[in-house]
Parts: sequence; structure tokens; C-alpha cells
Amino acid sequence: MSDISPTGLPSTVRPESGRRLISGDKVQGTPVFNRQDERLGTIEDVMIDKITGRVAFAILSFGGFLGIGENHHPLPWSVLDYDTRLGGYVVDLTREQLEGAPTYAAADNIDLSDTYGRRVYDYYKAEPFWQDV
Amino acid sequence: MSDISPTGLPSTVRPESGRRLISGDKVQGTPVFNRQDERLGTIEDVMIDKITGRVAFAILSFGGFLGIGENHHPLPWSVLDYDTRLGGYVVDLTREQLEGAPTYAAADNIDLSDTYGRRVYDYYKAEPFWQDV
Repeated sequence: MSDISPTGLPSTVRPESGRRLISGDKVQGTPVFNRQDERLGTIEDVMIDKITGRVAFAILSFGGFLGIGENHHPLPWSVLDYDTRLGGYVVDLTREQLEGAPTYAAADNIDLSDTYGRRVYDYYKAEPFWQDV
Repeated sequence: MSDISPTGLPSTVRPESGRRLISGDKVQGTPVFNRQDERLGTIEDVMIDKITGRVAFAILSFGGFLGIGENHHPLPWSVLDYDTRLGGYVVDLTREQLEGAPTYAAADNIDLSDTYGRRVYDYYKAEPFWQDV
């Protein structure tokens, strides 16, 4: 049986609670920062791949006011690092890089399981979620 | 590039929307039935493994009234089958089997990342989530 204690695990594993698992509810609303400690937005939701049970995307929400003009910014789960000091996730992107990334209006009903989602993974050079079936 | 269209995929992949990805928000509140079409409860939340980004558990909530006396019943994601006819997930368990499974009061702050979570996976004979690091 492998050791599942958080000791020595990568920074994504250092959560508020020190536990390896985190609830979807707790992920939602967590702030996201860049390496310059600029707050980029908050996690709105997660997109789960039904086949693998893997979180394919965390949806970063930014901009807008009371939901109007808000943008949704899908991030591969793997690009998020939890930072206990900031109490939020850190992504290694400037605000400009983020603005150049695939983004859509919150009102749009985008299907991330297809071409669009692949573009996002390409942009972040993340390991494809759709190939580990 | 592999084909990610839902055609020919297992039943967990046949969602409301026909899409491969589903949001955590949509999973929450989805009813769960057994093979006898008995409604067992609803999905309360998902527990995400920070290391692998995998959904380790869907938390089935049952019993209680207005949150009082409610039980939380962690299910490995892999035991859930989505059934379009029922508009919910189906698990291959009788109500009695479910009552014999590891369960905890909603008020308890159980750590599923450790021994307790392993017991749940043992009970359902599911492939361990903690070994694919």
C-alpha cells in the first residue's frame, strides 16, 4: 500500500486542510493569482470528464459585474498550484497571457469536450485529458 | 487524435447533454437510483484528488430532513452509471447493501483521503484512486 500522506507532495497537494481530497464546493470560489500575486479571478466550477472521472477543467471566472460581462476561462486542472500563503491557486501566467488564452462569455454554452477544449489544452501545453481512456 | 464523440461510449458517458464533460454544479443534486428504480438520494458533492485531478468520490446524501439526521455516503465515481431514462445515476446496489456500506453523518468531518476512503473503495471493489500517482 502506497503512502498517501501529504508529506513531500507537489504544491497542488498542500491545501487549506492538509488533506489529499478537496470537495468541489470548496474549489468553487477559490481565488486564482498569478506569480506576481495579482488576483485574476475565482474558480467558478469544475468540468468533470465522465469517462475517466478526471477534472478536465477548472473554470476561472473573471471580469464583469454581478455576472454581466463576465468571462469564463477554462484552465487544465494541472496548471493550478495551491498556495497556502495566498489562500488560493497560482497559475504561471501574466494577465496578458491569460487574456490571450481561449476565453468565452459566461453566457455562452461552450462544449469543452471537443475542439474548443483541445485548443485550451494546446494553449497551456497540458497533457490531453481525452487520451487516457 | 482519438475520437471523443460520445458514440459507443459506456453508459456513464450518456449524459443529459450528450457531452463528455459535465460541470460539478450539474452533478450536485442529481438523483441516484438502484437497479430496482428506487431513489436512494442525491449527489451532494464530489471529492477531487488534488494530485491526480481525479474525482475520487461522489457523495450521495440520503435520509434526514432539512439537513438534520442526513447521512453522507461516499461512492467511488466509477460505480455511477448515468441513465437518461431516469435522469440520474444508477448504482448496482440494493438499499440494504447501501445501508451496509461505509456511511457517516453529514455533520462529521471525515477525511476520505485516508483509511476511511480506502475502506469505501474496498467495499465497492473499485480500483484505488490513491495508486495512480
